[in-house]
Amino acid sequence: MNETIQHQLNHRSIRKFKAEKIPSDIIQQLLQVAQRTASSNFMQSYSLINVTDPVKQAEFAEICAQPYVAEASHLFIFVADQHRNAQIAEENGQETSVLHNMDRFMVAMTDAVLAAQNVTNAAESLGIGTVFLGSILNDSRKVIQLLNLPELTFPVLGLAIGYPDQEPELKPRLPQEFVVFENEYQQIPNMNAALGDYDAVVSEYYDLRNMNRKIDSFTKQITEGMNRKPPKRLAVLKEIQAQGFIKE
Amino acid sequence: MNETIQHQLNHRSIRKFKAEKIPSDIIQQLLQVAQRTASSNFMQSYSLINVTDPVKQAEFAEICAQPYVAEASHLFIFVADQHRNAQIAEENGQETSVLHNMDRFMVAMTDAVLAAQNVTNAAESLGIGTVFLGSILNDSRKVIQLLNLPELTFPVLGLAIGYPDQEPELKPRLPQEFVVFENEYQQIPNMNAALGDYDAVVSEYYDLRNMNRKIDSFTKQITEGMNRKPPKRLAVLKEIQAQGFIKE
Repeated sequence: MNETIQHQLNHRSIRKFKAEKIPSDIIQQLLQVAQRTASSNFMQSYSLINVTDPVKQAEFAEICAQPYVAEASHLFIFVADQHRNAQIAEENGQETSVLHNMDRFMVAMTDAVLAAQNVTNAAESLGIGTVFLGSILNDSRKVIQLLNLPELTFPVLGLAIGYPDQEPELKPRLPQEFVVFENEYQQIPNMNAALGDYDAVVSEYYDLRNMNRKIDSFTKQITEGMNRKPPKRLAVLKEIQAQGFIKE
Repeated sequence: MNETIQHQLNHRSIRKFKAEKIPSDIIQQLLQVAQRTASSNFMQSYSLINVTDPVKQAEFAEICAQPYVAEASHLFIFVADQHRNAQIAEENGQETSVLHNMDRFMVAMTDAVLAAQNVTNAAESLGIGTVFLGSILNDSRKVIQLLNLPELTFPVLGLAIGYPDQEPELKPRLPQEFVVFENEYQQIPNMNAALGDYDAVVSEYYDLRNMNRKIDSFTKQITEGMNRKPPKRLAVLKEIQAQGFIKE
């Protein structure tokens, strides 16, 4: 097994960072990796905002409700971006109504998310810790304001990085037969019963991680997750539409 | 610069594969990497379909309108999947209406796309060539039928892999100042003029790649892309909604 894959199989999210800043030449490497990521039809329909202002970073920590976001060395926000493409076309007298279609939002979101994982792999290969921040969607309107995002852009994923100040255990994943299928999807009857062994493994993981925390099995977390309904987050479609995406 | 990042900066999509099959132990490593990918709230809201049936693979080549898809050693389809989570919760008597919200589609799509890039990095580190297939969305209804995808799943991205039988040039990316911003989005006036040098570089790239192909600048490709409107692809929102996602 090569080093890249060793790092990948060793992935864990880091939520406690050292104060040490990542040097700018390393940041530059990570940005180059982002830009080398494949993109749909070579349209490069994403942008990356490098948040270096500590006041803004603290505001993100608040949006994400995760204090460690403010302590990370760097914070990247990956933005689905059809604004640049729209401008190019409009300057050439081309109408751009297709960009309001869901397809072009998916294209842009895919480009942004692929770049985010690519940067993560580069960072982890250098011993830098990472944590994705889907929680920027807790208040996407606020993010749009903070980053001054124009029409036809939308912030889809954050990534906080820094030198790790913790060594979490590897978090156990679902058994492969629940996630990977050959040739067609397989429905699994009595899912909770089938996941009994995995539930025990997950509970033990949490037990080791924090003696004081209540022990949650996987199926219990999933079930209770259905009641997690942050109102601004559930209004995300309206916010996306307000940016000019997904009119049809 | 370490090996991982060297591979990443060396990324190019491969569209011609050798007949040699990737050994099953390597495929197993790639699947393990997929499963180790970070996921939103630990919900692992994606599935991966490993298409090994050559008849199905040929049907994907037709959907994607890319004959090389049929020649790849392996074809993976990454699926946004809230079906598993819905089933777990419903078996426990929990209502699951939140899964119809756009937020939970984005969560699942993000999980799927992150896994796709993670597998890509692992494959490329082993000298395996890769090409993403956003073009599975040319006919998502057909993909859903082929893979027997249930409610609350949706195929978001394909990935064809195999040993490369070509060595394409590195495709030039947008200058960094057009894609990476610090602290807030920067609008660039007169975009086409600003991209003049880059247009020349892209034209030269195509010139080198194929003497017979017409030479397209970047801005021309973007502008003409606005007229690319495959009807089934532009109906993707309806197909996603038919699967139970994005009711609000």
